[in-house]
Amino acid sequence: MLKATIDAEIFREAIEAISALVPECRLHTAEDGITTRAVDTANVAMIAFTLKKEAFDTFKATKSEIGVDISKMKNIFNMGGKGDLISLELADNAQKMAVSVHGYHYSITLLDTNTIRKDPNSPTINLPGKVVISGEDLNNAIKAAAVISDKIAMGINPKDQTFYMVAEGDTDHIQREFGKDELKSLSPVEARSLFSLDYLRDMGKVMSKATEVEVCLGIDHPVRFSFDIAGGNGHVEYLLAPRIEAD
Amino acid sequence: MLKATIDAEIFREAIEAISALVPECRLHTAEDGITTRAVDTANVAMIAFTLKKEAFDTFKATKSEIGVDISKMKNIFNMGGKGDLISLELADNAQKMAVSVHGYHYSITLLDTNTIRKDPNSPTINLPGKVVISGEDLNNAIKAAAVISDKIAMGINPKDQTFYMVAEGDTDHIQREFGKDELKSLSPVEARSLFSLDYLRDMGKVMSKATEVEVCLGIDHPVRFSFDIAGGNGHVEYLLAPRIEAD
Amino acid sequence: MLKATIDAEIFREAIEAISALVPECRLHTAEDGITTRAVDTANVAMIAFTLKKEAFDTFKATKSEIGVDISKMKNIFNMGGKGDLISLELADNAQKMAVSVHGYHYSITLLDTNTIRKDPNSPTINLPGKVVISGEDLNNAIKAAAVISDKIAMGINPKDQTFYMVAEGDTDHIQREFGKDELKSLSPVEARSLFSLDYLRDMGKVMSKATEVEVCLGIDHPVRFSFDIAGGNGHVEYLLAPRIEAD
Repeated sequence: MLKATIDAEIFREAIEAISALVPECRLHTAEDGITTRAVDTANVAMIAFTLKKEAFDTFKATKSEIGVDISKMKNIFNMGGKGDLISLELADNAQKMAVSVHGYHYSITLLDTNTIRKDPNSPTINLPGKVVISGEDLNNAIKAAAVISDKIAMGINPKDQTFYMVAEGDTDHIQREFGKDELKSLSPVEARSLFSLDYLRDMGKVMSKATEVEVCLGIDHPVRFSFDIAGGNGHVEYLLAPRIEAD
Repeated sequence: MLKATIDAEIFREAIEAISALVPECRLHTAEDGITTRAVDTANVAMIAFTLKKEAFDTFKATKSEIGVDISKMKNIFNMGGKGDLISLELADNAQKMAVSVHGYHYSITLLDTNTIRKDPNSPTINLPGKVVISGEDLNNAIKAAAVISDKIAMGINPKDQTFYMVAEGDTDHIQREFGKDELKSLSPVEARSLFSLDYLRDMGKVMSKATEVEVCLGIDHPVRFSFDIAGGNGHVEYLLAPRIEAD
Repeated sequence: MLKATIDAEIFREAIEAISALVPECRLHTAEDGITTRAVDTANVAMIAFTLKKEAFDTFKATKSEIGVDISKMKNIFNMGGKGDLISLELADNAQKMAVSVHGYHYSITLLDTNTIRKDPNSPTINLPGKVVISGEDLNNAIKAAAVISDKIAMGINPKDQTFYMVAEGDTDHIQREFGKDELKSLSPVEARSLFSLDYLRDMGKVMSKATEVEVCLGIDHPVRFSFDIAGGNGHVEYLLAPRIEAD
């Protein structure tokens, strides 16, 4: 059971954070909010998403699992205006969710959760390098790299106390170093891994709105991006597997 | 014969109202203004269009019929700036119309009126349900429905005194009800018909600029939208045939 | 050798002026600035481009020739923000140029100058008709003509003291006359030639930002457009061959 109202902007922000990775997901409702955890079809990226009860204007839910077509939700609700309230309503074991916004009443068919991949386990990975950076800076560096290459190396140089991003194109090369003055914090632990810009570009667009993104890195290990949404009442973690560095 | 000057914005508004339905038409000039009446190629929608002499800055015309390539006019004049005056000049039996705007002089070849469909008769249809609504509200509801379906039902619920629009997609459903507080007026007569969103989308874009649109409905009957253009010195009527409600 | 810093906006303006004609070019560096002279692949249009040392914030160079992939430069640097400084650095006989902007460090592979067409000779053509016009007016007339045709005639009518542009489409015709009040200056010498709008459209976009463009014309002769960039510290000349007037 779910019965809630939420600001249209926050709702859209949440949908976009999930849709950067997967077109559909299992949403878990509980007394204290909603969560999801999903892996993309290629098993390369994972999202862990939480939207606390406090992010909603009103919220009442029991423990349940619902299958949501995230891409569809994104199309339908990309026109809700600022300040509009969205109300969500779902009976126990219902196949359809009732959504109302600004005089519009939607009845949206849910997906059978059996057709959606099981929730992935939370991997225990040790990523000792840690940096906190503005989402806009992070996204700009990703966009600049994408002009000349399809992959990017991210790393920490403990000696210089810098976080760096390096991309090699067929003929060109780009490097961006963030010193201590451009970072909110940095753990000076050697780290460097290579990632696909395909994934990073979609993630970057979402992260660009976050004031602070925590980036956790290792050596040839995944990267984890963590940031708040919904004014601190929601949280997103993206985990992205490294690519193999080859010549 | 036609010799007239008109504000570029009003001219463009008029061209767009016609081009939402037909790519070419017979324009009738007369002493008191210009009119057209045209049916789309599929015989599904009709436009009756009037631009009174008062909509022009200067206007002199004799009774005549000219064939106009509306799509071409739209392309050519979509860049006239605000406040610019367009002058139109056409001799008796001329094949070309001289159009001047902001230092540019065009000579535009007219179409042979024999190649354009005859003017349709004005059908006499009884549409007892009547609602007056803002063009923006109407267009927004059409756009929202178009995300999930290709057809929409419009109707009046006399008991609730509401005007409603309902669209069914393959899996989803959307409903928008306008109560008395959102309408300028409503005749509480039972009405409901189904329409193709293909046509409504183009009409909706034009109607979105009108403060008031009169919507006349019946049961499984056409819909008629009437609204003013050119600050009340012009008028447009769209008539759209219903689709058959099937499952 | 080249070591210079320049405002990102000016750099982009320079790149765009060149890329309207050619995708790659030989840039000549010298003590007093950089220059290029290039012909398009079809031998129809030529550019002569100068950016004086004064256009840069700092500038130090020796006489040299470098091969630059202009299209690539345009893609990479179309996101530099206003007020940003770009620094360029190139060692003697280096294959790569180091470019830094706003914390980003690029290493860009240069082209082998042997693979780029030799610099064209400066043709000595007598173009007695001369007009000075605002770049925006010129570009607007080019855009209006491009809606109905793929070529345009430009000419000077010495009797009326007007500069005119005429385009004939399959069925339509457009003419724009600029009188003395719309021109900065005019030499009343008979002139008229026909040009391809394909080329003019790209040139027009660049010229639209220039306050004054000098247009030099003859009878069935090329046209030469000259205008300043970089606040007067740079100069561009486009030369465009005429098309044959046929029916």
